[in-house]
Amino acid sequence: MKTSFMARAIELAIDNVRSGGGPFAAVVVKDGRIVAEGTNRVTSSNDPTAHAEVMAIREACSALGAFQLDGCDLYATCEPCPMCLGAIYWARPSRVYFASTAADAAAAGFDDAFIYQQIALPLASRKIPFLEMMRLESLECFRAWTEKQDRIKY
Amino acid sequence: MKTSFMARAIELAIDNVRSGGGPFAAVVVKDGRIVAEGTNRVTSSNDPTAHAEVMAIREACSALGAFQLDGCDLYATCEPCPMCLGAIYWARPSRVYFASTAADAAAAGFDDAFIYQQIALPLASRKIPFLEMMRLESLECFRAWTEKQDRIKY
Repeated sequence: MKTSFMARAIELAIDNVRSGGGPFAAVVVKDGRIVAEGTNRVTSSNDPTAHAEVMAIREACSALGAFQLDGCDLYATCEPCPMCLGAIYWARPSRVYFASTAADAAAAGFDDAFIYQQIALPLASRKIPFLEMMRLESLECFRAWTEKQDRIKY
Repeated sequence: MKTSFMARAIELAIDNVRSGGGPFAAVVVKDGRIVAEGTNRVTSSNDPTAHAEVMAIREACSALGAFQLDGCDLYATCEPCPMCLGAIYWARPSRVYFASTAADAAAAGFDDAFIYQQIALPLASRKIPFLEMMRLESLECFRAWTEKQDRIKY
């Protein structure tokens, strides 16, 4: 049941705070059962990418032996940040349920809303500038890719 | 030198295609030397989050024993997708240099530009719908966080 999956995620997030992690958790559900759980481990594992959704997606893919979450739903205690939104689009679950909003996360001191604002800015005007160089040389990477007959698309 | 760091990333990406990975690589540079390298391992490791930038950030944080990339520059063979952009903002390097553009990636069959378009849509109208539920219950996670005196902010 949807509420029980989200309740489980909320419980995991609160427990995670108590054990020194961030206040976020996520679970991946397939065919009515939880196949993976994730909590925020950024500071405890020195990994800024270790958000709950990313951890749950990685764990679910590992459990299912796939790099796509076909037919899965993701339940996250908070609206996914841009990193997690991107991870979700690459993993391609069917639906995402979330509880708190990006504004709630911002009120608690997290940069989610700020990063969403930054995406809309011109690349070189961002707080972290994104600067283009050597584009022509780099196109060789895509040439190698499109010429490879047995490439696995994703 | 900037061009040698990007040339190294391009070389890694081409090698990665030859060994069965995606056509992307990234390196993290601190104090004039490469501290971490990453390549796209999505299909080879069944991990949709294993983009080159994420791999390089994780590796650099591990090497530096930190969850922030203070004073580092990231060199990526392609303009970061939204997931990697988010990862970059959480890792907080000084600058990002990229070579190919999101349009180049799209031309080679990758969803980067599509995901950027999706971010601008209302949550429930996205191709993967984002649906809110149990917001009030979830605020307990942030309450637990803000009440914790020894929390490590990130």
